[in-house]
Amino acid sequence: MSAESGTKTLEVCFSPALIGQHDVSEAVVVVIDVLRATSSMCVAFHHGVNSIVPVASVEESLAYREKGFLVGAERNGEMLDGFDLGNSPFSFMDALVKGRDIALSTTNGTQAIAAAKGAKHIVAGSFLNLDVLAEWLMAQEANVILLCAGWKNSFNLEDTLFAGALASVIQPAFELNRMRDAVLAAIHLYNLARHDLYGFLEQSSHRSRLAKLQIEKDIAYCLTPNQAPVIPVMVDGALVRMAV
Amino acid sequence: MSAESGTKTLEVCFSPALIGQHDVSEAVVVVIDVLRATSSMCVAFHHGVNSIVPVASVEESLAYREKGFLVGAERNGEMLDGFDLGNSPFSFMDALVKGRDIALSTTNGTQAIAAAKGAKHIVAGSFLNLDVLAEWLMAQEANVILLCAGWKNSFNLEDTLFAGALASVIQPAFELNRMRDAVLAAIHLYNLARHDLYGFLEQSSHRSRLAKLQIEKDIAYCLTPNQAPVIPVMVDGALVRMAV
Repeated sequence: MSAESGTKTLEVCFSPALIGQHDVSEAVVVVIDVLRATSSMCVAFHHGVNSIVPVASVEESLAYREKGFLVGAERNGEMLDGFDLGNSPFSFMDALVKGRDIALSTTNGTQAIAAAKGAKHIVAGSFLNLDVLAEWLMAQEANVILLCAGWKNSFNLEDTLFAGALASVIQPAFELNRMRDAVLAAIHLYNLARHDLYGFLEQSSHRSRLAKLQIEKDIAYCLTPNQAPVIPVMVDGALVRMAV
Repeated sequence: MSAESGTKTLEVCFSPALIGQHDVSEAVVVVIDVLRATSSMCVAFHHGVNSIVPVASVEESLAYREKGFLVGAERNGEMLDGFDLGNSPFSFMDALVKGRDIALSTTNGTQAIAAAKGAKHIVAGSFLNLDVLAEWLMAQEANVILLCAGWKNSFNLEDTLFAGALASVIQPAFELNRMRDAVLAAIHLYNLARHDLYGFLEQSSHRSRLAKLQIEKDIAYCLTPNQAPVIPVMVDGALVRMAV
C-alpha cells in the first residue's frame, strides 16, 4: 500500500548498504547518526548555521573553504588537523558558526545521506530533535524510512535506539509492512534501554571507541532528547533548517 | 585479533547483503534460516538423509531429479507443484528420505549459503541443533560469524532470536570486536523473547506470512531446541551430516 492510497508505511533500515531493499522514492528518509553527525547538525542549526553541505571526502571539504565555508571533518571519531570544526555538538555551539555555511565530512553520516538520494525528503534525526521531528513526520502524507548510518555499513546500537525511540512515538500513524521486523526490533531495544540509554550503550562498540577519545560529555548530551528542536532537511545538495 | 593468535571473534550479520563487512575466510559461518530451511535441514539429517544440495533456482533443482535426487522447493513459504518435498520440517521426517540425496531450493536459506562462500566451514544452525552446534563452535580454533538469512535480504526477527540464543551460550569462548553491536542486540532480543519465543514472534512479518499458510505447527516445532542434534556442514557443494 502506498502513501497515495491513504495509508503510509514505516520502515527501519539498519545500514546504508541495505537501502536497496527499500523504496525511497515515495518516502521521507530520516538519516540517523546519533554519535555524532546528525546530533551536531541539529545543534548547528539550532545555533544559527545557515547551511551544511555533507561531503564524502576530506579533500572535497577543503575545496569548500576557498568558497568561504567553514570546514568540519572527522574520521574514526577524531577531528582532523587543519579543520575549523570536528564532529562534537559542542563545537557547533560557538558564536562563530552563526550565519555561516559549513562543509562537513563525517565517517558514516555523509555516506548515509548519499544512500538516501532520490527520497522525497531527506531529514536528519537525533535524540536532540526527537519531538519536533516526530510531530512533523506524522503530519506528512508520505512513507517514512528510518535509516541508521551505522558504523561503516555495520549495524550499531545507538542509531537503532533512536530509530526505536522515534518509531515508538510515530508508529500509530503508520502501517507496518513486510519490513516490520526491523521496526519491532528497534522498538524492543529502545524499550529495554530507555530508562538508561547511557548505561545500555556502555558495552557498545562505538561508545567504547569514543570513550577512548574522552568525549563522554558528547555522548551524554547526544542522548538527551529535545535539546535542539530543529529539522535539518536536504535542499539542493545542502542541509538547511526547515521552516516549521 | 585473529584466531591464530589464540583469540577468536564472534560476529552476527543480519543480512546476506551485509556479508561483505565480515571476513569469512578465517571463520566458521553459521547460516540461520529458522523458518524453515535450516530447521528442515537439521531434521533431514537427523532422519538419515545422505546429502542436501542447496540450489539457487527451481529450474536447477529439477535438473537434479534426473540424477536420482529428491527435489524440494519452496517460494514465499509455499511448496511448489511437481516437487517431492516442501520446506516443512515434517516433510523430512518421512521414511522415504532415508539415504537419499536432496536438491533443495529455498527463498532465503540457499542465498545465505551462497553468500558465505569462501568460509572455512559453512554449517546450518537452528533451534533444533542449538546445543550440539554451540559445543562444536566453542571447540573450534576459528572465528565465528552467525549469518541470518533474513527475508529477501531484510532483517528478520526469528533468525536474530536464534543468533542471540546461540551467541548467549558461546560468547564466553570468544572476543567481541568492533562488530559487537549486532551480537549485543541479538542477545538482548533473545533474552526478551526466551520465555515465549512463539508469542514474541506473533507480530513478526514472516510468522504472519506463514500463519496464512496454516503452518503454525511448523513454527512451534522450529522454535523447540534440540529436536535434531546434528550439524549439517557444506562439503564440496553439498550439505552432509558432520561426524561429531
